[in-house]
Amino acid sequence: MDEASKLFDSLSDEQLMGEVAPGRNRGVYLLGHLAAENDNMLRLLDLGKVKYPKLYEDFVVKADRAVAEIPPVGELRKCWTDSCNELSKHFGKMTAEDWFGKHTSVSTEDFAKEPHRNKLNVVLVRVGHIQSHLGQLIFLQSRS
Amino acid sequence: MDEASKLFDSLSDEQLMGEVAPGRNRGVYLLGHLAAENDNMLRLLDLGKVKYPKLYEDFVVKADRAVAEIPPVGELRKCWTDSCNELSKHFGKMTAEDWFGKHTSVSTEDFAKEPHRNKLNVVLVRVGHIQSHLGQLIFLQSRS
Repeated sequence: MDEASKLFDSLSDEQLMGEVAPGRNRGVYLLGHLAAENDNMLRLLDLGKVKYPKLYEDFVVKADRAVAEIPPVGELRKCWTDSCNELSKHFGKMTAEDWFGKHTSVSTEDFAKEPHRNKLNVVLVRVGHIQSHLGQLIFLQSRS
Repeated sequence: MDEASKLFDSLSDEQLMGEVAPGRNRGVYLLGHLAAENDNMLRLLDLGKVKYPKLYEDFVVKADRAVAEIPPVGELRKCWTDSCNELSKHFGKMTAEDWFGKHTSVSTEDFAKEPHRNKLNVVLVRVGHIQSHLGQLIFLQSRS
């Protein structure tokens, strides 16, 4: 999350309006997308309710440009930062036992058979997801 | 590694010769790059000697197009597959204790102060590295 925050901070609003590659997602979409996925982790890790349900709808369920009006970039930046802070706050209080507990999208029966489907695994998968998009977002960096 | 193998298998030699985005690395470079980094993990995790030292030189130390002649795509594909098999073979034999042991690029003194610099951490960082390039390589997929 720190790495992504640094990258977002290094990009201007104008740069974020660009596509990461021709015909691909805009930076602003990926910003909303990662904020929405972060926010959704609150639910997955049983840490509380999501704070931005509309973000999930607009930036995960729907594709880039499928929504007529998206929030201003500044607002999406705040959602991203807020979601990182919220998760960090919870992560700091979690014990090893918490991390190995089941997440909310796996049933008790399935978890008994596949105990690796724990909260730590959710975070590892989410980190990988962030990194795959970071590999794309850096393409916005050196453009004028 | 499985995800990357699937992606590489889905791309033709011709597609791999393309740039992931205008002016960026070619797919073939990233294939060699990830094979070299995989191979280098043998050394980092103290599992043996690297098998392809030239790959590291050409695809990690040097940038794309800095080397006059690179191996044919088919050979790089084999290096990738071989490096995955080699790592999987070793990973299957490692115990929890092995994973929490120090990797070869951290000194004993530093490891005593920072015990999180273990072998598991190397693998987590390497997985993130693969994923950031996978986010780029998928851009080669839907091009004709």
